[in-house]
Amino acid sequence: MAQNIYDTAEFFAGYSQLPRQTKGLDAAPEWPALRSLLPPMQGRHVVDLGCGFGWASRWMRAQGAASVLGLDLSQNMIARARADTHDEAIQYRIADLDALSLPAATFDLVFSALAFHYVRDFARLAHTMHEALLPGGALVFSIEHPIFMAATHPHWLADVDGRKTWPVNQYADEGERRTDWFAPGVLKYHRMLGTTLTTLIHAGFALRCVEEYAPSHAQIAQTPELAEERERPMMLLVSARRLP
Amino acid sequence: MAQNIYDTAEFFAGYSQLPRQTKGLDAAPEWPALRSLLPPMQGRHVVDLGCGFGWASRWMRAQGAASVLGLDLSQNMIARARADTHDEAIQYRIADLDALSLPAATFDLVFSALAFHYVRDFARLAHTMHEALLPGGALVFSIEHPIFMAATHPHWLADVDGRKTWPVNQYADEGERRTDWFAPGVLKYHRMLGTTLTTLIHAGFALRCVEEYAPSHAQIAQTPELAEERERPMMLLVSARRLP
Repeated sequence: MAQNIYDTAEFFAGYSQLPRQTKGLDAAPEWPALRSLLPPMQGRHVVDLGCGFGWASRWMRAQGAASVLGLDLSQNMIARARADTHDEAIQYRIADLDALSLPAATFDLVFSALAFHYVRDFARLAHTMHEALLPGGALVFSIEHPIFMAATHPHWLADVDGRKTWPVNQYADEGERRTDWFAPGVLKYHRMLGTTLTTLIHAGFALRCVEEYAPSHAQIAQTPELAEERERPMMLLVSARRLP
Repeated sequence: MAQNIYDTAEFFAGYSQLPRQTKGLDAAPEWPALRSLLPPMQGRHVVDLGCGFGWASRWMRAQGAASVLGLDLSQNMIARARADTHDEAIQYRIADLDALSLPAATFDLVFSALAFHYVRDFARLAHTMHEALLPGGALVFSIEHPIFMAATHPHWLADVDGRKTWPVNQYADEGERRTDWFAPGVLKYHRMLGTTLTTLIHAGFALRCVEEYAPSHAQIAQTPELAEERERPMMLLVSARRLP
């Protein structure tokens, strides 16, 4: 079973105060890029893996999705998602993505935002997602970029010219990474970018778009602290399709 | 037109002494991984983009390829390839990949080793390669990994724990990179990994495998200086297919 750091009081207290949790999708700078990868929602059946407080689940329903199933490991998250949602067509359930089971050929879209880097066995999950999609259905997700999480000490350095520089080491050594983020020892799983993509291909997906999110110059003009995210790739956005 | 650094005396003198030039494919540690992406060669018509001295062109012919067309910008390289090849089924020609023209629906395989990072307009080249392939034909290539070439000062650093660490900056700023390699100011073009892959998808390719080459532990036991290539991704290997 995956580590359930989101249900520790210390982590949850900090995490809940992130702008993207208090203000929703518009406080996530990568949201316009991720949204642009989504298919039309009208009448679609969607599963949202790692739904958190349900911001994306509610947005997809508001765009016309016929049903949304939001799944998350955290009881705290699911309780808050349920409290914030008043819509019979959106259901939330507790589920561990490392032990996920979904009904076959049921969904038009599998969506996930920043959850898959907590998954130990991505090949298993890729197979589960593929089987759960209807033929022609879409998979759209964001994940922490492997360059962001590979190093033993993932913190900014200054290069010889003083330029903000991101460190990369142990990139080819896949597996557990521990990081301190609101709580000590948050457990993530590093996979090379090639591994993630080839795992999807082997599961039967056709890749449609691979995007390494970087803030636009307009976004940086509005929020200058985003500028450093052009130095390194922090998030990977992927869209893929189950072949018809 | 691309920079023709290979035809400057200083560069060519150094480059010609690389083990992979004096000893051939077996001196390239990524060759077993790249070779494993190749389709069966028997009876196939192949174009080798950036063929250099023709090592791969001759290998593919020896595996049974019906014909191999090797193209390179460098007169030095093509002259040497011709001198080292005694086989009517292998032809070598001078060509600039940034202005490449190929006959339509002619080849079973487009192969390229470590040449595409010299190409300014990869979208144009991807379209040209797609049109030159027969339906169902394969594209297999290696390229310098964008993490290897993004930074302003692409040289090893020591992290706080002394670990060999590779610097990343200006990753999202695509375009020219100048590096000193046998000669000052060698011109390469940085593209994000996502850009390279999505450009291929938009050109009509189905991605089959995306691999960030890292030496195996057996290779490191034999050649200890390869160990650092597990810290950073240095080469990207891709196989794709023109849809039937």
